[in-house]
Amino acid sequence: MTDRSATLQRLRDLLGERLSTGESIRDIHGRDEAYSAPALPDAVAFPESTEEVSRIVAICAEDGCPVIPFGVGTSLEGHVIPVRGGVSLDMSRMNRVLAVNGADLDAVVQPGVTRKALNESLRASGLMFTVDPGADATLGGMAATRASGTNAVRYGTMRETVLALEVVLADGTVIETGTRAKKSSSGYDLTHLFVGSEGTLGIITQLTVRLHGIPEEISAATAAFPTVAAAVDTVILAIQSGIPLARVELLDEVQMRGMALYNPDFSLPEAPHLFLEFHGSPAGVAEQVAQFREIAEEYGASDFAWANRPEDRTRLWEARHNGYYAARALKPGCAGLVTDICVPISALADCIAAAKAETDAAGLIAPLVGHVGDGNFHMLLLIDPDDSEELGRAKDVAHRLNRLALSFGGTVTGEHGIGTGKLGYMQEEHGSAWAVMGTIKHALDPKGILNPGKVVPQD
Amino acid sequence: MTDRSATLQRLRDLLGERLSTGESIRDIHGRDEAYSAPALPDAVAFPESTEEVSRIVAICAEDGCPVIPFGVGTSLEGHVIPVRGGVSLDMSRMNRVLAVNGADLDAVVQPGVTRKALNESLRASGLMFTVDPGADATLGGMAATRASGTNAVRYGTMRETVLALEVVLADGTVIETGTRAKKSSSGYDLTHLFVGSEGTLGIITQLTVRLHGIPEEISAATAAFPTVAAAVDTVILAIQSGIPLARVELLDEVQMRGMALYNPDFSLPEAPHLFLEFHGSPAGVAEQVAQFREIAEEYGASDFAWANRPEDRTRLWEARHNGYYAARALKPGCAGLVTDICVPISALADCIAAAKAETDAAGLIAPLVGHVGDGNFHMLLLIDPDDSEELGRAKDVAHRLNRLALSFGGTVTGEHGIGTGKLGYMQEEHGSAWAVMGTIKHALDPKGILNPGKVVPQD
Repeated sequence: MTDRSATLQRLRDLLGERLSTGESIRDIHGRDEAYSAPALPDAVAFPESTEEVSRIVAICAEDGCPVIPFGVGTSLEGHVIPVRGGVSLDMSRMNRVLAVNGADLDAVVQPGVTRKALNESLRASGLMFTVDPGADATLGGMAATRASGTNAVRYGTMRETVLALEVVLADGTVIETGTRAKKSSSGYDLTHLFVGSEGTLGIITQLTVRLHGIPEEISAATAAFPTVAAAVDTVILAIQSGIPLARVELLDEVQMRGMALYNPDFSLPEAPHLFLEFHGSPAGVAEQVAQFREIAEEYGASDFAWANRPEDRTRLWEARHNGYYAARALKPGCAGLVTDICVPISALADCIAAAKAETDAAGLIAPLVGHVGDGNFHMLLLIDPDDSEELGRAKDVAHRLNRLALSFGGTVTGEHGIGTGKLGYMQEEHGSAWAVMGTIKHALDPKGILNPGKVVPQD
Repeated sequence: MTDRSATLQRLRDLLGERLSTGESIRDIHGRDEAYSAPALPDAVAFPESTEEVSRIVAICAEDGCPVIPFGVGTSLEGHVIPVRGGVSLDMSRMNRVLAVNGADLDAVVQPGVTRKALNESLRASGLMFTVDPGADATLGGMAATRASGTNAVRYGTMRETVLALEVVLADGTVIETGTRAKKSSSGYDLTHLFVGSEGTLGIITQLTVRLHGIPEEISAATAAFPTVAAAVDTVILAIQSGIPLARVELLDEVQMRGMALYNPDFSLPEAPHLFLEFHGSPAGVAEQVAQFREIAEEYGASDFAWANRPEDRTRLWEARHNGYYAARALKPGCAGLVTDICVPISALADCIAAAKAETDAAGLIAPLVGHVGDGNFHMLLLIDPDDSEELGRAKDVAHRLNRLALSFGGTVTGEHGIGTGKLGYMQEEHGSAWAVMGTIKHALDPKGILNPGKVVPQD
């Protein structure tokens, strides 16, 4: 292992107690929420300002020491794991909301602010931050992975939500990638280059994000469908008809069974469901609901249940967000391997059918939840962590699902990102464009110190 | 001048008659619609396929010969002008709509398709392509300049509209930057890197663009306001209130006078106006109109005039799109120098007031039109082309307006781009980020053959 004691000493001189080499701190920063193998950083740094981040990166650059940004560690593809050691840069102390600009519908925040903390601080403003990946992730981490979630069908992903960034580059230089102006034709779109770059091109130290007004009326609903295909066809037709669905989540019958096992108060039937939300004026929401209901009933929907009071909506979406834990209730003691494929919506019903055929053929329990308005769905392949044969079968199925997405003109990751977990699909998904990513990485980080081992072709 | 006869011979061997060195063809490809000094290409190539573009670029790369993509030449900042000679790549023969995917709300097109041609081909589908820069530009050109226009406030600019690109790189390699899946977290966002890169990083040979359903109900209107500030404040409050305005264009009293001079049938009063369009269901549009009207009347709006029949709407928006010619009617025989600044909408009223003070102080006639929902407005500085003193004054005022935009936290170009015309502002607007653009350019085009002299720092 490389001797990094001189680097760490220089960092300790800069940060004092805010550089930690303790085993338990390093351990926390050496894993994420999924199944990637952990790897420890040499140290964890807790910067409190952009200038400190810049100095840390400059020191690490001189010594060729890896720097891996860390939010709250809820990523799922090994993004934050220091596979080559180095310094984990924990951004949790940079957690201030710097400005909320109501007239411009934007906010300027530090990267350690979580989405729930931002929405909490917006409470009095009548505004909301819409990107909702389930976990209470940091905005820096969400930008770095181009996260999305249940609201993306209406309000977009982090791609549409980040207006501008402040970024520390691989040599410590600080840049701003845009302004608060709503649009611009001024030069290369560096904002979008850094969104989704997973810490491999620079460290995000500040974000300007788009906000939305909280709608006057919000109505949520669940509806049961005879088949998954009927639910998907309903969504396609609703979107084509211009119904501005704010949320539309598919849960298959297996997932619904898990939710009933997980929560004894959960009373919805064991059939494929859509969980929905409608936003607008009272008249607008009433119109959306009527239009949607007409389409859904044509496809055989039944058991509509409405949640119009805030507490009922909260309960509904909590149930959805706890889907991961609920799914695991189907196989007590199990671990889960989650897929994240995304295809053009016209291919979604066929893709889901083919995916279910794969999991069935492999004899796996694999509940499905999907952001179907975006063509994105997750299957959680449940495995006994001690059963290496079953793990092998699950990995094989996950691989088949990823290939399936590519065969339908889609992507292996709609919202979780590449990290190390999906690195093996980059060549097949992007062809020659993957080498272009490597060229850009090499130009901006010639020493390869920023989150090495991720996203781009490896030397 | 560099001897490019060997390169041209190789290109002629490839393209035959589709390589032209005729004076008049070269002249057409040596200028754009604005005031930049023309410069002739050595030849004009008319490729018919991606493979031909790839071969042309590969030949030019070997010989270090510049390649400048050309759509229809409606750019305004000198983008298409071959300032270092070379080959102008006229994309007009690559003008096929390759696919319209109704269920996915997208279309796949070649770069020479114009926005009107695309909408014409969508006629039977109930779908529309929404980006509308006024000119009937090609989609390749619009992507390259990150164009927008009157609909952007609701449907976004080319930034939000381009889903994926096929691009020929500086060595002739062909890449695809994305899929038709609606979202993805798979690697660097190369699509957005090429959108707005003005032909300096690659040649766009195919685009996948987002479409929208034609709304069931469309209503257009004009309204007069006592002051420009009252009109702007109306727009800010309407947007904050969540009214999904589809178009909201400001025309000041000077512009309105020009429109009356240009068209004797134009009967609106000489006062600041908003031109508006509302899209939705019949009930939704009625609600939007009522809400908007209430806000506007609080700010003293009067003379509401409605255009609900398609022919009346067409007349209204034709009048708006002819704004440039109408403005020039204010000073017969004049030329016009157009500004394109864009600021956070909260700063818009102050910025417009300061801008008008500048044009007044300089004694210039300067009609104003603005995409005010986006904080973007144009002033057309009218000048006698033979009066060099007046041209000097106008350039000085344009400079002051650009500085004004930066002082309000905005950009010198909301939608026209950099080309050569705004190159002088890049350092001030982007600081150290401009050098990063140069680094990327150098990495992807080490010989500097792609549209040299534009966007990035020049050697």
